[in-house]
Amino acid sequence: MNDSTYKLSELAFLVDGEIAGGPDVVIHGMGDISTAQPGEITFIVKVGQVDEIAATAAAAVIVPLAMEKAEKPLIRVKDPYLAAAIIHNHLLAAPFTASGIDDRAVVGNDCHIPTAVAIGPMAVIGNRVVIGERVTIQAGVVIGDDVTIGDDVILYPNVTLYNGCRLGNRVAIHSGTVVGSDGFGYATDEQGRHVKRPHVGIAQIDDDVEIGANVCIDRGTFGKTWIQQGAKIDNLVQIAHNVVIGAGSIVVAQVGIAGSATLGRGVVLGGQVGIKGHIHLGDRAMVAAQSGVHGNLQQGAIVSGSPAIPHREWLKASTLFGRLPKLNQELREIKKKLAELQKDQSDTSSGN
Amino acid sequence: MNDSTYKLSELAFLVDGEIAGGPDVVIHGMGDISTAQPGEITFIVKVGQVDEIAATAAAAVIVPLAMEKAEKPLIRVKDPYLAAAIIHNHLLAAPFTASGIDDRAVVGNDCHIPTAVAIGPMAVIGNRVVIGERVTIQAGVVIGDDVTIGDDVILYPNVTLYNGCRLGNRVAIHSGTVVGSDGFGYATDEQGRHVKRPHVGIAQIDDDVEIGANVCIDRGTFGKTWIQQGAKIDNLVQIAHNVVIGAGSIVVAQVGIAGSATLGRGVVLGGQVGIKGHIHLGDRAMVAAQSGVHGNLQQGAIVSGSPAIPHREWLKASTLFGRLPKLNQELREIKKKLAELQKDQSDTSSGN
Amino acid sequence: MNDSTYKLSELAFLVDGEIAGGPDVVIHGMGDISTAQPGEITFIVKVGQVDEIAATAAAAVIVPLAMEKAEKPLIRVKDPYLAAAIIHNHLLAAPFTASGIDDRAVVGNDCHIPTAVAIGPMAVIGNRVVIGERVTIQAGVVIGDDVTIGDDVILYPNVTLYNGCRLGNRVAIHSGTVVGSDGFGYATDEQGRHVKRPHVGIAQIDDDVEIGANVCIDRGTFGKTWIQQGAKIDNLVQIAHNVVIGAGSIVVAQVGIAGSATLGRGVVLGGQVGIKGHIHLGDRAMVAAQSGVHGNLQQGAIVSGSPAIPHREWLKASTLFGRLPKLNQELREIKKKLAELQKDQSDTSSGN
Repeated sequence: MNDSTYKLSELAFLVDGEIAGGPDVVIHGMGDISTAQPGEITFIVKVGQVDEIAATAAAAVIVPLAMEKAEKPLIRVKDPYLAAAIIHNHLLAAPFTASGIDDRAVVGNDCHIPTAVAIGPMAVIGNRVVIGERVTIQAGVVIGDDVTIGDDVILYPNVTLYNGCRLGNRVAIHSGTVVGSDGFGYATDEQGRHVKRPHVGIAQIDDDVEIGANVCIDRGTFGKTWIQQGAKIDNLVQIAHNVVIGAGSIVVAQVGIAGSATLGRGVVLGGQVGIKGHIHLGDRAMVAAQSGVHGNLQQGAIVSGSPAIPHREWLKASTLFGRLPKLNQELREIKKKLAELQKDQSDTSSGN
Repeated sequence: MNDSTYKLSELAFLVDGEIAGGPDVVIHGMGDISTAQPGEITFIVKVGQVDEIAATAAAAVIVPLAMEKAEKPLIRVKDPYLAAAIIHNHLLAAPFTASGIDDRAVVGNDCHIPTAVAIGPMAVIGNRVVIGERVTIQAGVVIGDDVTIGDDVILYPNVTLYNGCRLGNRVAIHSGTVVGSDGFGYATDEQGRHVKRPHVGIAQIDDDVEIGANVCIDRGTFGKTWIQQGAKIDNLVQIAHNVVIGAGSIVVAQVGIAGSATLGRGVVLGGQVGIKGHIHLGDRAMVAAQSGVHGNLQQGAIVSGSPAIPHREWLKASTLFGRLPKLNQELREIKKKLAELQKDQSDTSSGN
Repeated sequence: MNDSTYKLSELAFLVDGEIAGGPDVVIHGMGDISTAQPGEITFIVKVGQVDEIAATAAAAVIVPLAMEKAEKPLIRVKDPYLAAAIIHNHLLAAPFTASGIDDRAVVGNDCHIPTAVAIGPMAVIGNRVVIGERVTIQAGVVIGDDVTIGDDVILYPNVTLYNGCRLGNRVAIHSGTVVGSDGFGYATDEQGRHVKRPHVGIAQIDDDVEIGANVCIDRGTFGKTWIQQGAKIDNLVQIAHNVVIGAGSIVVAQVGIAGSATLGRGVVLGGQVGIKGHIHLGDRAMVAAQSGVHGNLQQGAIVSGSPAIPHREWLKASTLFGRLPKLNQELREIKKKLAELQKDQSDTSSGN
């Protein structure tokens, strides 16, 4: 956080927005429409939110292009939600504070750690770890041997990175997340004993990936588990050995992805989805919350249900699910009538 | 734990119970009916458990009012399960041991920490943290800046509280739980890049809330995520940004609640339930395990399934689900008979 | 990891395999068929993978017995997947390095810790803890009072063991996992307040159990929660109070098992399965991913769905689910035709 202020015109410039009223209004923060304070900017996403603009205490409002003017100074943009995110990040931007390595952190041998880092107390870093510029490693983080970490990474408290994992630039990992633990792989002998398969691969997290809290990303059996550039992973997600998450994919909380499944670019998985192992989800495939995907998906597929079927079909089918008792009752009545008809027919045919 | 002993009459008084036999029997602990030891009290919930009373080694038994006497001294109460919980807590009650702040804990600047605390080794506490009386912070807990914690709180090992979060009195949080990490919110630009929405809100946990292990409670985007008084959250639950959990609600393990959903008072969510974002569940609504709730629920609603429907309807429908192949077969047969009938009818009509 | 090398014949001997070609080929590691390097051994599981053998850079290949020879030296075995696991473990086997207790670890009073251990920095061990030979306790692990740990155990970083828990020999527990936290048990009074039930039991983990990352295993209310010999638990699994997991069972990621449920020997639960409390799953029962089991299962039962039904029935029923709209349409048409027939019949009968 910082204490910088900006003129409305400066903020509009950031998002290619048009000003309506007060270009010199001074902004120091952002709030949401109902609770924003004087000196803050806020945003709406629908033109219909006129009353909310009238009521807000905010100094200015980011609005859709379709809204030409209002009772407040405006920044008019194509996508207010996006513009608000960009402006909010700008308002909060602050230079990196290189507090160095805390005395109570532990650093192994043969590491490469630049001066511009912030490594907190009780962080434990293994041997031969390479860390980039402006990296923040908070309290209680444990990093195994031979890990490499890019620039501008932040690891929140109590994250664990197992040995050999690789993180790109601008990666953020929230508390309690475990990267690179062994995958769940056993071979079972004739006595039913499960013999562990060693996991000699790694987990690789590419640039601009953010990972939520208490996520598990297993290392590869061989090779790597791979989260590609710009993917975003929510809390409590399970990503098994050798999974590939394509660039820009979105994985909502509590999803489980089984071993060696691969996601293309821009795939979206709703919360609590399960993905079977060894299948491929094509680019931009979308899976509704709680669905279970058992087979490959074409690019752009939109599916729901467990097992997942095309979303439109699922919508119709799931509506009928609740009406199964009624359908069943109808079937009973039809059978009865049919029997009567058959009897009548038989009577008629036999001339009675 | 303590070594106090109580007379049966003292324990009966606690729960407004009636003694049948031995008011002076001395009790020092509680066990379950099959493994309780001499000197312990135990309980049954059904009158029919007479044989278990005969067999138990316990010194006394808490029983329903309907049981008038048995081979053991009894405490007769309306709700033995509740009475057992109250008595067991009483038997275990012990004064707080103020061990102070361990030498190997780290405390930031400008904190307010009373003498009567127990802060373990490797705990890390940020700046401007305010802690109440008789608070226990176990090993490896990390607390961010500007956190406030009420009285009689216990944080088990390796809990993480992000900056600015607020905990009321008598809050208990189990190991690995993360409170106040960023919510999962991005705005996507025209190139498909996900721009992070800053999360400047907090998470607030009110009095008497207990939270299980490895739970994730995100901070608000703006405003707060809010767990209200007396709610109980099981392990591995996901609570997204700006969710409100009403007072006294029960959230069983592995539930996921999406952003800005709100629960009324006394709502019960079964294990692995998913709740869509931005919906409201009325007071005392109940959702069966594994269900998915996509829309608002009235107070007192009882629902099941994904998408959730009234529980009674779901029971009937889900029974029929397994009989779909049979129903389908019947439909085939009906179609066949109908075709025959039509043919016959046509023959009859045409005078053949 | 080690730098040992082995002759192919030595490795074949380990797995009772037959050599075809080059018994003196020297092997120092294992890779998968597509990326293995010279000096490494690899494996295939299907005879049809002949082309992959031709293409691999590996020095030798473990193959099914049915494959008699190929372009590479072979080890022919009944189960190549199992043989590969055994050989890979052998190649990686290294003597335990007893680094002792790190200066920055904390050990309580009256513990029994042998010389041959490796306890990392920031590990915190309570009072009266008993630890076996060759135990590895990595950074940030927290162990409560009165815990007992067998020989050859490994606890990865940031694991938490609550007081009184017991671990057998050769147990491995991955990062972030919590063993022995309180179960989710409350008695509710007439005002709707949830009175916590004390949890005075423990969690017991028997020999050869491996537990993934961010798992939760609650302690017993009384008695114990019990993971029996050789069971394998994947990441993010919830195991409630007093659950018993039978020997050799396999529990895949994100499963939730409610209180007092018991699993027999060799039970397999797919990912995201939910098991109701107080039920029993017989030996070798198998539950498909995302299923919900509401009642007892016979030994060897194979079930799917929520609520779970026999897997074969579920397969048929779930196929028909997507066709519900079509079935419904057919039902409409039948009703219409039936009405017409009734009318015709009535006309015919009445002599029109």
